[in-house]
Amino acid sequence: MLISKIGEFGLLERFRKLITTDASVIKGSGDDCAVLKFDRQHYLLWTCDMIVEDIDFTSHTGPLLIGRKAVAISVSDIAACGGVPRYLLASLALPKETPVSFSERIFQGMLDIAKKYKINIVGGDLSKAEKITLDVSMLGQVEKKNLVLRNKACPGDVIFVTGALGGSIKGKHLNFTPRLKEARFLVKNFKVNAMIDISDGLLQDLGHILEQSRVGARLYADLIPQGPQAKDLNDALYSGEDFELLFTLSKDQAEKLLAKHLAIFQPIGEIREENFALRLVDKANRERLLKIKGFRHF
Amino acid sequence: MLISKIGEFGLLERFRKLITTDASVIKGSGDDCAVLKFDRQHYLLWTCDMIVEDIDFTSHTGPLLIGRKAVAISVSDIAACGGVPRYLLASLALPKETPVSFSERIFQGMLDIAKKYKINIVGGDLSKAEKITLDVSMLGQVEKKNLVLRNKACPGDVIFVTGALGGSIKGKHLNFTPRLKEARFLVKNFKVNAMIDISDGLLQDLGHILEQSRVGARLYADLIPQGPQAKDLNDALYSGEDFELLFTLSKDQAEKLLAKHLAIFQPIGEIREENFALRLVDKANRERLLKIKGFRHF
Repeated sequence: MLISKIGEFGLLERFRKLITTDASVIKGSGDDCAVLKFDRQHYLLWTCDMIVEDIDFTSHTGPLLIGRKAVAISVSDIAACGGVPRYLLASLALPKETPVSFSERIFQGMLDIAKKYKINIVGGDLSKAEKITLDVSMLGQVEKKNLVLRNKACPGDVIFVTGALGGSIKGKHLNFTPRLKEARFLVKNFKVNAMIDISDGLLQDLGHILEQSRVGARLYADLIPQGPQAKDLNDALYSGEDFELLFTLSKDQAEKLLAKHLAIFQPIGEIREENFALRLVDKANRERLLKIKGFRHF
Repeated sequence: MLISKIGEFGLLERFRKLITTDASVIKGSGDDCAVLKFDRQHYLLWTCDMIVEDIDFTSHTGPLLIGRKAVAISVSDIAACGGVPRYLLASLALPKETPVSFSERIFQGMLDIAKKYKINIVGGDLSKAEKITLDVSMLGQVEKKNLVLRNKACPGDVIFVTGALGGSIKGKHLNFTPRLKEARFLVKNFKVNAMIDISDGLLQDLGHILEQSRVGARLYADLIPQGPQAKDLNDALYSGEDFELLFTLSKDQAEKLLAKHLAIFQPIGEIREENFALRLVDKANRERLLKIKGFRHF
């Protein structure tokens, strides 16, 4: 049987079943970051993301954008757990015939965004490969009280996103702004029950929250903000690499947030009990069950 | 200009010049691990190593050995800084047509060695790629007093290695035992001035110690232990992936170690002043200057 048969998440599930961890691991695999004990007030957050030529970018992608994307994805993961990025290591594999200037511009792309978010680049590894491959491993910190995972969404919670969805492949996936500022604003001022960054599509990532919180949800087609490049509603629901935050707040907390009239935080639906599953109310006010799916590597 | 012209270390040097880090970074790039502030007694050690099909292993390499190698390389880096490995993240890229069983055996290879060294696997990333690519990022800890870097070798120090060198390509590079036990024995019982693991060949890695400590060295051909698979002395001097430890002790400390008659720790030469450069005393007792070179990715 090939991995394309069971898919990325099927394979991850099989790996996960084999893992045991000790008490210093607050949260192992299965969230945006691993969460480890650190000091009295903080946890360590730790994530890694690999991008590969012809999959995550093309041979025509500007090198600054390649470096930028690898770092931005990890910043987005740290943000989704409520934390602040601090350090990164980068493993970079390059074809032998890569120009020095191109390599330096990949690195400059990493440096520029690292500087912007005050992240220390503390090392890495250089290898040879046929395709450009860049894996960023990032460490961050989060105050214990501000840690947000995917598993505390409750029936009645309002579901929000931080921006327009869909059509990221047209360019946003290379130059998106990770929602770090927004995430920190949220965790410092609200009790966020669950949060994830949308990397594999709204429905698939909402699916992770629903599964881990053992809840269902109702979305409203009218409320889902579509990006200027989105083809249609389905594109906003299913396509990957938006890197917006998806989060849930209790009704009280949601009203408090909505009262601030911050256009970036858009309510799109509500959390329901588990057996409600996932449903969409369409523009004609008809409700239908949705299948959880989205981007899969294989 | 292509990267093959300036080489791996030339490119790293160009990257390094662009980096600035804050005071929480004890040691950034340029050693076996990055060293970060942690608690009152400990530093965090952090390393990453990427292995790529057709470069670091072949399509005939058993999957258990692929997983094992990626983890063992990072354990060796943590050992070279005197620490203990604790956690790992793994980014794994696989061709779509990879069998599930093959993927699971790569993971099992990681799990087996992780278990052996009590390392928690806390997450990772799965991607698609044409060639199998595995990047392991590992966190460890070291007591502040036990941290060893590459930059404190002193003229008069005795240079040691932990085992036979050369011919690793014949198999050892896939199933070597990282010298964690030996490194911990050393840092707990001796004052180790400088240490590195031999990944790119004895001379090249000794070169890193010499450069960072601003010293020279004299090696004795007679004393350099050649592995059973080593072709000749040059193979032991220049070929990569031995993953033995190379370290220096003051004369007093060296005598204390030698008095223990532990066959694994072999003295091979001594540290000299910087302008002595690097010289080898051959079997006919003639001394000649050596060029620092070894394995380079490009």
